[in-house]
Amino acid sequence: MREIHVIGIGAGDPDQLTLQAVRALRSTDVFFILDKGEAKADLTRLRRDMLDTHVPGGAYRVVEARDPERDRTAGGPAYSPAVGDWRSARADIYERMISEELGEDQTGAFLVWGDPALYDSTIGILEEILERGRVAFDYDVVPGISSVSALVARHRTGLNRVARPVQITTGRRLAEGFPEGVDDVVVMLDAHQSFRAYADQDIDIYWGAYIGTPDEILVSGPLAEAAPRIERLRAEARERKGWIMDTYLLRRGPAEG
Amino acid sequence: MREIHVIGIGAGDPDQLTLQAVRALRSTDVFFILDKGEAKADLTRLRRDMLDTHVPGGAYRVVEARDPERDRTAGGPAYSPAVGDWRSARADIYERMISEELGEDQTGAFLVWGDPALYDSTIGILEEILERGRVAFDYDVVPGISSVSALVARHRTGLNRVARPVQITTGRRLAEGFPEGVDDVVVMLDAHQSFRAYADQDIDIYWGAYIGTPDEILVSGPLAEAAPRIERLRAEARERKGWIMDTYLLRRGPAEG
Repeated sequence: MREIHVIGIGAGDPDQLTLQAVRALRSTDVFFILDKGEAKADLTRLRRDMLDTHVPGGAYRVVEARDPERDRTAGGPAYSPAVGDWRSARADIYERMISEELGEDQTGAFLVWGDPALYDSTIGILEEILERGRVAFDYDVVPGISSVSALVARHRTGLNRVARPVQITTGRRLAEGFPEGVDDVVVMLDAHQSFRAYADQDIDIYWGAYIGTPDEILVSGPLAEAAPRIERLRAEARERKGWIMDTYLLRRGPAEG
Repeated sequence: MREIHVIGIGAGDPDQLTLQAVRALRSTDVFFILDKGEAKADLTRLRRDMLDTHVPGGAYRVVEARDPERDRTAGGPAYSPAVGDWRSARADIYERMISEELGEDQTGAFLVWGDPALYDSTIGILEEILERGRVAFDYDVVPGISSVSALVARHRTGLNRVARPVQITTGRRLAEGFPEGVDDVVVMLDAHQSFRAYADQDIDIYWGAYIGTPDEILVSGPLAEAAPRIERLRAEARERKGWIMDTYLLRRGPAEG
């Protein structure tokens, strides 16, 4: 039976690998890597460096494929179907890689930045392939340090305040309104700096980009003051590196509860 | 200057330590451990085993203190003040341990189960001690695999569905009502199995206790069917071990979005 590990490899700091992840890397015969184009070449290299460090003697094979184009222009109600199409296209590629490149008694792995549990499609895609029933495999999931955990650790704060909830959401959702019933909100996948809409409110922001890497940038403070600074730093960094990955926590006052 | 690490040590599986956490353990002179009484002796032992495995030669010192009694009878609006008192009592103990047991040029550490960012008071207590200004130190936070990440990895599911938010909250909050604006809710610190109130709704539960340890128990499925089973297993396990730590994800239908 083919085995597959879905391995969370942390938010960018190679030391954020868990011992379980290292063990999984070492038991893998074939790594499946999807190339996301020029902009993410840094990340591909970082991933390669992890393999070179932890898998002695280079006793592994890497299979690379081109990520299917995602229709990023689709907004509003079209978003979910577009994701569905993209996911099926990705499932086609994964299915082919597993059946053609992984021997019946071999172990493959997908390396996922952060934690496979947060805004990552790998588990869903593997389930889709299993449902199709054309290739059989077993898989497990190795949890990783998410960019959310890494962000608040660097800011030395918690995700939630005492006995209170925290919500993790997307930039798109935040643009539709501040979530109900919570004052602590983590925002991921925000290409449009949706926090700007709340700069007139009593909110602190804890923002970070390229967390855990040498390029890391951290900004925190009252949103009204921090927002322009983040906008500037974000634009500069994006220009310089060609891509950006950032995350932030919004904490609405009053400060303690 | 005294240095302190707040180290997330994962949810129970010693292999969920990160390389960064192992490095931090090895650079520590004094570990501060708060004894939470008989019931948690298993956890104290697990923590000791981690130290013995990763800190060669036993080149460290452990300072133990008794956790202050927490007024767990206080319900409703009294909850926050009771926590406040308990936190100050704990800050008194931490402050004394740091000033009396840690040399000026030494490094101390607090080991936190899961991730220090989620429902843990260590960061808040250290900030309180720094504000008092009687002992100076610098500290950093090493993120850990939370029981939330470990739970969903074992269940091979994600925390959120595509492009949708997830909320992390407490059993007490869930007892007050299902959170607004979200269909995926992770519940921690639930001593009263508050999920039972929702058993008549179209909700799936992914539940786990002692996650990542040899005693791990996992149950998932439609809440109406799973709830009685979880109640029974939970009561048995609690009786057998004398304590229980469990977490769960509630996922309200429709299934895909």
